[in-house]
Amino acid sequence: MTVMYNRVALIGLGLIASSMFWAMKRADVVGEVTGYARSSDTRDVAREIGLCDRVCDSAADAVAGADLIILCVPIGVMADVTREISGMLKPGAVLTDVGSVKRAVINAVEPHVPDGVHFIPGHPLAGTEQSGPRSGFAELFDNRWCLLTPNGADATEVKKLRTFWQELGSNVDEMDADHHDLVLAVTSHTPHLIAYTMVGVADDLSRVTDTEVVNFSAAGFRDFTRIAASDPTMWRDVFLNNKDATLEILGRFTEELFALQRAIRQGDGEHLHDYFTRTRAIRRGIIEAGQDTDVPNFGRNPVRK
Amino acid sequence: MTVMYNRVALIGLGLIASSMFWAMKRADVVGEVTGYARSSDTRDVAREIGLCDRVCDSAADAVAGADLIILCVPIGVMADVTREISGMLKPGAVLTDVGSVKRAVINAVEPHVPDGVHFIPGHPLAGTEQSGPRSGFAELFDNRWCLLTPNGADATEVKKLRTFWQELGSNVDEMDADHHDLVLAVTSHTPHLIAYTMVGVADDLSRVTDTEVVNFSAAGFRDFTRIAASDPTMWRDVFLNNKDATLEILGRFTEELFALQRAIRQGDGEHLHDYFTRTRAIRRGIIEAGQDTDVPNFGRNPVRK
Repeated sequence: MTVMYNRVALIGLGLIASSMFWAMKRADVVGEVTGYARSSDTRDVAREIGLCDRVCDSAADAVAGADLIILCVPIGVMADVTREISGMLKPGAVLTDVGSVKRAVINAVEPHVPDGVHFIPGHPLAGTEQSGPRSGFAELFDNRWCLLTPNGADATEVKKLRTFWQELGSNVDEMDADHHDLVLAVTSHTPHLIAYTMVGVADDLSRVTDTEVVNFSAAGFRDFTRIAASDPTMWRDVFLNNKDATLEILGRFTEELFALQRAIRQGDGEHLHDYFTRTRAIRRGIIEAGQDTDVPNFGRNPVRK
Repeated sequence: MTVMYNRVALIGLGLIASSMFWAMKRADVVGEVTGYARSSDTRDVAREIGLCDRVCDSAADAVAGADLIILCVPIGVMADVTREISGMLKPGAVLTDVGSVKRAVINAVEPHVPDGVHFIPGHPLAGTEQSGPRSGFAELFDNRWCLLTPNGADATEVKKLRTFWQELGSNVDEMDADHHDLVLAVTSHTPHLIAYTMVGVADDLSRVTDTEVVNFSAAGFRDFTRIAASDPTMWRDVFLNNKDATLEILGRFTEELFALQRAIRQGDGEHLHDYFTRTRAIRRGIIEAGQDTDVPNFGRNPVRK
């Protein structure tokens, strides 16, 4: 395979960065991959499991001479990290990120990007409820979507980064940052907040003991707990940085929820039945688009103790 | 294996009834199993796939001479069905059900149960997003819980029904009907309503096109669509019949959601981070209790088109 980028630097070594590393190695499209994480424990784990060809003790060392720099840190520290590395960025290098919000990342990063460096914001729509350097795997991006919000970046470099993500297994699309943030508020941010809330409510109910909530979770609740087990720091930063879109979708959500609540209170079975019938169609669309499995319960095998 | 019930009648032939049939055959603990469904199409499918030893064209025929009668119909028709079969129930027979709400089922069924028939309400906490006679499978109840709300029924018959459910693969617990309805409002009914709502909101948003919602669903939303693809009639009846507990838990849910919404609006990252950290523990409990898998994304394999 042709080497697309001779030197790649991963800043932050969590689920996404470690999956990117293994996917880059699988695709065999890059030269040396360096890595940096703020926590020395994370760097030790990375060295232990062979994550990155070279783990550096500073972000500046990791990015020195890199052709592609990928920011894989929580959104809240993107500005600081970019400031820290900006003096070391090579002219002509491509700087990208994997943050779940794009307008806020652009506002945080762009002021610190030196002339001659191509900043192309990105967001792979992939993840699991696990986090940390050990949680990555090469298949994470296969058939998932990666969204780029190029924001006027050089077309040749954008095209090359698209191909890079395709080599990692992704489909790629481009859109405006604000539109991205609204779409993600619907498909990701609001669902996560709701899942966190539902799990928090269950945790609060002293009349319903822990054991009951846990044992009887198979009736629907357990799906929520998977989402609500996601990384707290990442998600705090998502909500703080996609405030407007999340609050807008939350407003629509509570409006609809109140309408259903009133239907329950008034015994309006027709309203409920119509609503529940309509939502089945979206599931079919997702399965037809290859974005989920059609086997019952996601194909979970019966779980035995 | 010893035959526990010589004749078993399944009234309603959907996901639960069909899974019970295959689980009974696997366990080899019953004699002849008869079945009835109101829809002649469903009865035809049942005959075609060998679901039930004998499919009857009336509920009365199906229950005649049965030692165990299992009502597997939506909660809204439990009263009518019981009235229809009550004259045919054999003295000493056990009548049970699989409804997701227990107080309303007791109120609907009990007035029509003849003297000498043992009514033991039940609820297997198991299911998938699929429905109908073809959706059943023998493993559905393995290591799941079945809750009985015996309501003063004969202890020997309750013990026997417990053993029957254990033979089908379940764990069994007993509780008061009102407590059952509250626990299920937390672990099942409210989560389902919320999932339906979130999917409905996405469906409503004309600015976010169908294709985007569908393609970009892997970021969290797709888990909600699975739950929101469940049977509309069953779920309409659940909400109409567990009104008080569902409305109470919904009230707590919106209270917590508004607190998180305010934290987002005010930029209170500490509140968000604390909340998101707390909810991770419940997930661990569910995995330790053997009620879900610990592999990422429920062990979904990468889905390829």
